[in-house]
Amino acid sequence: MTAIFSDEYFMQMALNEARIAYDKGEIPVGAVIVSADNRILAKSHNLTELLNDVTAHAEIQAISAAANFLGSKYLKNCTLFVTLEPCQMCAGALYWSQITRIVYGAEDPKRGFKTMGGQIHPKTQINGGILKEKCSSLIKSFFEKKR
Amino acid sequence: MTAIFSDEYFMQMALNEARIAYDKGEIPVGAVIVSADNRILAKSHNLTELLNDVTAHAEIQAISAAANFLGSKYLKNCTLFVTLEPCQMCAGALYWSQITRIVYGAEDPKRGFKTMGGQIHPKTQINGGILKEKCSSLIKSFFEKKR
Repeated sequence: MTAIFSDEYFMQMALNEARIAYDKGEIPVGAVIVSADNRILAKSHNLTELLNDVTAHAEIQAISAAANFLGSKYLKNCTLFVTLEPCQMCAGALYWSQITRIVYGAEDPKRGFKTMGGQIHPKTQINGGILKEKCSSLIKSFFEKKR
Repeated sequence: MTAIFSDEYFMQMALNEARIAYDKGEIPVGAVIVSADNRILAKSHNLTELLNDVTAHAEIQAISAAANFLGSKYLKNCTLFVTLEPCQMCAGALYWSQITRIVYGAEDPKRGFKTMGGQIHPKTQINGGILKEKCSSLIKSFFEKKR
């Protein structure tokens, strides 16, 4: 069983968001932003196809929503959980937000920020690989269905 | 005199947007997206302070607005004019948009994508330095006033 408020607990919530994206025909990536006292500040999923907007990644929406909720553009003492390693655009947005921690699921060796060369803020901790098999198999299954 | 539809002509339009940002107390950066037949698809300026949102850079807003106007997330045959070298977030968004051309004014040696390590799409042409003195002196004057 998954312990409440563990990284796996919140990543499972992000995976639920990714499944909503899957059902809408979107590349299945989901995100959740959580405060230090374990409040959910934002939940989102990729909507680039439905919105015709390359900026509508799960992370960008979650950052905007959490900042709006907090009334502050800095996401201090917050953690982002996202099912896929952020791209350089999202890494850049997370950089500006000075978010305290980033936890991602699957690696993205093609378009992830580590490959593309983006940077996260020196104040930000980052951990990858949480529920990575579940996160990556959802994406694989999406692209297999597309073929 | 500035020739109509030249790079300087559209950069002057982006500078007018930057001045609107300046008057709102925002770091003065402006952007314009133009189609191949010289139609203005989007005009925008930085709104990160007013919107409490680190993603509200001029470029991100212009990309979303132009894609919404075109009904396509790909900005093919479009040119972005922006008064400051894009950051890694905006370079990432421009990468995904596959925009045909990027024209920027002043360099950003601290937070520009060339320093931070971001990439633009191999299909995208990029030119810097158009009206760079005007673009950078507006930003300098903003920070001098702040002190």
